[in-house]
Amino acid sequence: MSTNVLRTADGWWVVRGDRAVPVDTKAATTAELLADRAAVREAAASGEAGTPVADLVAISPVTTPCRVVAQMVNYRSHARDSGFKGEIPPAFFRKASGSVSGPCEAVVRPSHVTFLDYEIELGLVMGAPLPVGTVVEERDLPSYVAGLVITNDISAREVQLTRTQFYESKSYPTFTPTGPHLTLLEPEDFAHLLDLRLKLSVNGEPRQDRTLADMIVRPAQALTLLARFQTLDAGDLLLTGTPGGTALKAPPKAVEKIGSLLPPAVKWKAFFKSQAKNPHYLHTGDVITATIATPDGRIDLGEQRTPVADAN
Amino acid sequence: MSTNVLRTADGWWVVRGDRAVPVDTKAATTAELLADRAAVREAAASGEAGTPVADLVAISPVTTPCRVVAQMVNYRSHARDSGFKGEIPPAFFRKASGSVSGPCEAVVRPSHVTFLDYEIELGLVMGAPLPVGTVVEERDLPSYVAGLVITNDISAREVQLTRTQFYESKSYPTFTPTGPHLTLLEPEDFAHLLDLRLKLSVNGEPRQDRTLADMIVRPAQALTLLARFQTLDAGDLLLTGTPGGTALKAPPKAVEKIGSLLPPAVKWKAFFKSQAKNPHYLHTGDVITATIATPDGRIDLGEQRTPVADAN
Repeated sequence: MSTNVLRTADGWWVVRGDRAVPVDTKAATTAELLADRAAVREAAASGEAGTPVADLVAISPVTTPCRVVAQMVNYRSHARDSGFKGEIPPAFFRKASGSVSGPCEAVVRPSHVTFLDYEIELGLVMGAPLPVGTVVEERDLPSYVAGLVITNDISAREVQLTRTQFYESKSYPTFTPTGPHLTLLEPEDFAHLLDLRLKLSVNGEPRQDRTLADMIVRPAQALTLLARFQTLDAGDLLLTGTPGGTALKAPPKAVEKIGSLLPPAVKWKAFFKSQAKNPHYLHTGDVITATIATPDGRIDLGEQRTPVADAN
Repeated sequence: MSTNVLRTADGWWVVRGDRAVPVDTKAATTAELLADRAAVREAAASGEAGTPVADLVAISPVTTPCRVVAQMVNYRSHARDSGFKGEIPPAFFRKASGSVSGPCEAVVRPSHVTFLDYEIELGLVMGAPLPVGTVVEERDLPSYVAGLVITNDISAREVQLTRTQFYESKSYPTFTPTGPHLTLLEPEDFAHLLDLRLKLSVNGEPRQDRTLADMIVRPAQALTLLARFQTLDAGDLLLTGTPGGTALKAPPKAVEKIGSLLPPAVKWKAFFKSQAKNPHYLHTGDVITATIATPDGRIDLGEQRTPVADAN
């Protein structure tokens, strides 16, 4: 049975129904909390009535700085949206952990960004070191992954596509809303991962809705591939890709082939001119809601609700 | 006048001619050493005879973990090599700091990598926090950059080009040889940065040889652009791009245009088949030497000498 942990400015809480019980721990970081599982268990089992969850202001349950690594194109539906055909070589990129923000904080659009997009992703929170060279089998996953969080991999599309490297476009402050729950898993919960359903709406309009069954490279294999070159530690965060339904859709194949013969600046100017008519990008005042859960509620990462705001 | 610092397994040293004097400091990390400049000055001014530098085994003077950020295509000569025409939008990517290795350690080729390439780069070592939103003018540079190091941005080209994201291809362990000197600058030294000459040879054969005058986005502007989205702290490392002369050269324009119409897997297969005849990629037993200095020796980052080895 999974345990949902919240973090507020005051510390850590275990969620029990619509109330939360404070965790008696000195942990300041996520890694420290994961090392003090006894305190979490004690709060989960305590007789305390606790505080209504509705009275708490949740902040990101993943503390920073930490490593934030992300998988590129990792759902079949997103691969189709992005115009990929055939085999997709698995790829990773980094996000600055300064982009991590709370589950009800505003997503702030930098003034030079027009094409602001959303990408709901399941975040894996590491519970133990992953040395380079580690091979993670399905059955080993509980030894490395402590828990799950909702993340939104906010993307400035005109920066992303014109720079080729994704790092800047996805790293501005508030570009990784995280939480509310850090859902700590027991080994038996891992058998239910593929039932997790990711849902994202903008102003109540559904945009993304898929289960993990649509995922291309699953968590154990992803960690094996990542460990070819990258060490991780407890408290680090792996974003596992987004399903179809983002505002960005690849241009039709014919347009793309013509575009590939143009100088890049001309190609992108034409592409973003066409995108200006696309109503799905995020605008100031929009509210993004995101949930990830199994249908039976056995694993439930809570609801993230983030308004979109302009930089001052 | 700049001060050259070495690091060995025993601690920190100040170089004076062909001898080195130990720094009396408790600093374990580069950031801690930079906070203890008094100890460095004391070693530089001491009457001690010191130890012959030739008797010391230098390790990376940049300690890890730290942030390692790199600038993409930042020398005009490398832009030509890479087939870029017209304006190049400045872009950054991350390297895992687990890739940092010493200035005489072997570069280890992973068994799945054939097209191993070199890229000498000037590394900037941060001396103070760079908050998001900072605008760094030329005159402010000494407030943010404490010193310089030689770095080699080793790249697995078949991983880099087929994955689009550079992160994995440049992040395997030993893919960022760093040092030997951490060259600490005084404010007046910064006026001489453009005189720095980067030279890299393989088995004594010159491959790269350019000054910073060929650089596109210079350090103050690079930090300003990076601070649009990324915080840095003391001890973090920014790689500022490589000049022309890498083994990888872009295919001729006609070939590239035909290639852009092929499915990616077919295009890359043809490209790397052609690259198999290119003798400039690194092979086991090769020795890479790299130096960065001004012609008058006012700033001298030492000599990096790294053999190439196979993974066991």
